[in-house]
Amino acid sequence: MTAETSLEAKTAVSASEPASSDVVMEHALERPLATSAEVDTPSSEVVVFRDKPLELDCGQQLLPFQVAYCTYGTLNAERTNAILVCHALTGDQYVASRNPVTGKPGWWEIMIGPGKPIDTDRYFVICVNILGGCLGSTGPASTNPATGRPWGLDFPVITIGDMVKAQARLIDHLGIEKLFSVIGGSMGGMQVLEWASRYKQRVFSAMPIATAPWHSAQNIAFHEVGRQAVMADPAWSGGRYIEAGTVPRRGLAVARMAAHITYLSEEALERKFGRSLQNRVAKTFSFSADFQVESYLRHQGSTFVDRFDANSYLYITRAMDYFDLAADAGGKLAKGFEGTQTRFCVVSFTSDWLYPTRESREIVQALNAVAANVSFVEVESDKGHDAFLLDEPELFATVRGFLGAAAKKRGLAA
Amino acid sequence: MTAETSLEAKTAVSASEPASSDVVMEHALERPLATSAEVDTPSSEVVVFRDKPLELDCGQQLLPFQVAYCTYGTLNAERTNAILVCHALTGDQYVASRNPVTGKPGWWEIMIGPGKPIDTDRYFVICVNILGGCLGSTGPASTNPATGRPWGLDFPVITIGDMVKAQARLIDHLGIEKLFSVIGGSMGGMQVLEWASRYKQRVFSAMPIATAPWHSAQNIAFHEVGRQAVMADPAWSGGRYIEAGTVPRRGLAVARMAAHITYLSEEALERKFGRSLQNRVAKTFSFSADFQVESYLRHQGSTFVDRFDANSYLYITRAMDYFDLAADAGGKLAKGFEGTQTRFCVVSFTSDWLYPTRESREIVQALNAVAANVSFVEVESDKGHDAFLLDEPELFATVRGFLGAAAKKRGLAA
Repeated sequence: MTAETSLEAKTAVSASEPASSDVVMEHALERPLATSAEVDTPSSEVVVFRDKPLELDCGQQLLPFQVAYCTYGTLNAERTNAILVCHALTGDQYVASRNPVTGKPGWWEIMIGPGKPIDTDRYFVICVNILGGCLGSTGPASTNPATGRPWGLDFPVITIGDMVKAQARLIDHLGIEKLFSVIGGSMGGMQVLEWASRYKQRVFSAMPIATAPWHSAQNIAFHEVGRQAVMADPAWSGGRYIEAGTVPRRGLAVARMAAHITYLSEEALERKFGRSLQNRVAKTFSFSADFQVESYLRHQGSTFVDRFDANSYLYITRAMDYFDLAADAGGKLAKGFEGTQTRFCVVSFTSDWLYPTRESREIVQALNAVAANVSFVEVESDKGHDAFLLDEPELFATVRGFLGAAAKKRGLAA
Repeated sequence: MTAETSLEAKTAVSASEPASSDVVMEHALERPLATSAEVDTPSSEVVVFRDKPLELDCGQQLLPFQVAYCTYGTLNAERTNAILVCHALTGDQYVASRNPVTGKPGWWEIMIGPGKPIDTDRYFVICVNILGGCLGSTGPASTNPATGRPWGLDFPVITIGDMVKAQARLIDHLGIEKLFSVIGGSMGGMQVLEWASRYKQRVFSAMPIATAPWHSAQNIAFHEVGRQAVMADPAWSGGRYIEAGTVPRRGLAVARMAAHITYLSEEALERKFGRSLQNRVAKTFSFSADFQVESYLRHQGSTFVDRFDANSYLYITRAMDYFDLAADAGGKLAKGFEGTQTRFCVVSFTSDWLYPTRESREIVQALNAVAANVSFVEVESDKGHDAFLLDEPELFATVRGFLGAAAKKRGLAA
C-alpha cells in the first residue's frame, strides 16, 4: 500500500523490444484471493453472529454474519485499555502480524507493538476486518448461506455505519463496554468519526487521521473510475467471477493504479521517480514501461489483484462515497457530536490531497462548536495521503503523546 | 472536453432498480470513429507529402504522410499575419468551425473569430490536426500505404517534436516563412514551446498556455493508467480493433474518465456537483450513478469514445510523456531558448493542478535567463486545467492585448 515498496520487482526491458510487447501488466499468482479459504475461514480470530441480525442502513438485515479480527497485548481486568484500530480501504485485520495472503508484515507494525506509539505492553489492540472486506468478515466474496454461492452483487450495499455496527457487536462480544481509544487513518478515520458520533458513551478517546467528515466530489469521481474499470473487465462476469472461474485482474489493476496516484503527493512522485528511466539508458519509443513511475504503478496494480477481491473493492469504495456525517446529523456536522465527552486528536498531512487539511479542519470546527475536548495536528510531510502508514516521527510522537495523556485521565497504569 | 457540458444527457435512474443494472456505461453510436472516412479523407483541407520523408525522433521515416488543417481569416499579401493554433490531446483542427464527427461547434470558438481575441478579421488562423491524431493527419488509425491496413501499433512512436516538424512542413507548403504567433494550451502549449525552441527564426510571438516544459511523474502516471485501461480491454485486440471489427469502448471510456478528473479542479467539482444526487431524492444503495459527479463522468467517458480513436490516445499520451525540452537542450531549459528573438506570453491558471503555475514559472525563468522578451500572467480561476477552454475574461484580455501589441511591433494593420 505504500510507496516504500516501489523499487521491488522491477523488470528490465530491452530497448530493442517491439512496441507491442510488455505493454500490459503481468500477474504472478494464478489463484485469486476470492477462492482462498481466508474469505470464509480466516487464519485470524472470527466470531459468527447467529442470533440478532445486523440491521443495515439500506434497510436489509444480515444474518448470520461473521467478524474476523486480530488482537495484540492483554485486556486488563477492568477492561479499560482496549484500542480499536480501524483499517483503510484495502487494509485488513493483520495490523501488527503477518498477513496470511501476502506473507508480509502487518500494515501498521511501525506504529503498533511493544514500546511502539500504540504500545501493546500497555494497551489491548483490536483490529477488525471490515464488513464487506475479503479476509474473513462477511463480504461479497463470502458464501451466501441462503444459496451456498458467493454473495457477489447480491450482497447488500453497506455503509461506514454498517461496518461500525458490526464492530460494535464484536466489542460487545468481547465484553468491552467502553473503548479506551478508536484510531484509524483514511477510511479508518471515517469509522473513528462514526464510532464517536454513534456510540458516544463507548469511546473514551478518538484519533481520526488523514480523513474527512464526508467524501468529496473529486474522491467520488476517482472511485467511480475504479469501479468502472473493474466492471469494464469482461472477466468480472457481472460480479459472478468466482463461479465463472475468472478474475477481473486487468480491471482491478487499473482501478488500483488510478487510486494509488491519489495516495501519493506530486512532490513524492517527483522526488522518488521524476522522469527517471527504468533500467534503460534511453527512451524505447514504445509503450513499455520506460519510466520508473510507470513500472512502479504497474507493480502496484498487479500485486494488488493478488491480495484483494474485486467486488469488495466495489462495495467498500461505495461505502466511502456514501459517507457523510453531516447529512446523517441533519445537515450540521456539529450536531453529530453534541454531548460528546470523548477526547479527540485530529491529524492531517500537509501534502495529502485526497483528504486535505481543510477537511480535517471541518471536523475540528464541528467539535469546537460543541465544546469538545479536541487537539489538532497538521503534520508537515511531502508523502501525501500514505504518510499515515509511513515513518513519520511527528505522527508517532503525536499518537504516543495523545494516548499517554488520555491513559492518565483514564487511570491506566503507565 | 469542458466541464460546461456537464448537465447534458443525464438519464434518470429509478431508486427501485436492482444493484446490477445500469452500473456500466452506455454508448450511443454504433460506428466507431476509427472506421470513419475522416481518418483518411477528412472534411477539412489536407496536404499529402510524397516527396521528402518526415524524419521522426525515433529514427524512422514517414512517407507519404498527410497533414489535415483548417484556416480562418485571410493571409495578408506580406504573409505576416498567420497564427498557428496548436490543439491539445483530444482536440482537432476544427478550432473555430463545426466538427464533422460530433456536429458541435469548434473547440475554441469562444476565442477565435471576427472581433474575438484571436481576431480573424485581422489574423490568418491555421489549426492543424496533429501527427498521430485521428481526424485526417497521419496516425495509427490511418491506412498504412505499405500494407493497405490501418497502421495500428506498427505506427512509429512519435514525439511533440515530430508533430511540430509535420506542422512546419505545412507552413512551408503554405508559403509562410515566419508565423506571426504560435498559440496553444496544454499539449498545444508544448508544441508552442517546441516551435519557439526548434524554429526560432520562424516564430515572431508565442503563447504557451497552461502547459509545462516537461511532463511530470504524476502526469506520466495518469497517462499510464489511461493506456493500461485501453489495453486491458479485450476489444482493443492488440491494437488491431479496426480489422477485428471491435472497439475498446470501455477501456477508452475509463481512460477518459480518469483523465477528465485531472482537467478540473477540486473546487470546480465541489461547486458544480458536490455530493448532489442525480435525479433522485435518496441514495439507491446500488452501483448506479447516484451522484451527479458519477453521471457526469460516465457521460464524459462514453461520448469521448464516439469521437476519438483509442490508438491515437495511446500515441499522443506517449508523446506528451516523452516531452522534456530541458533534456533536449542538454539538461538546461534555458539553453533551448538561447538567441531567441520571439516575444513570449506565458499563461497559467491558479487552480490548474495538471500543469501548475510553478511549471510555467520554469519556462519564464528559463526565458529570463536568456534575456528573452517575456510576460507572465497567472489567471485567477477555480476551473482547473480546462480553464483555458472556458469563458475566462482575464485570459481573453491577455490574448487580445498580447497579440495587439505584438501586431504593432510586427507592423500589421489594425
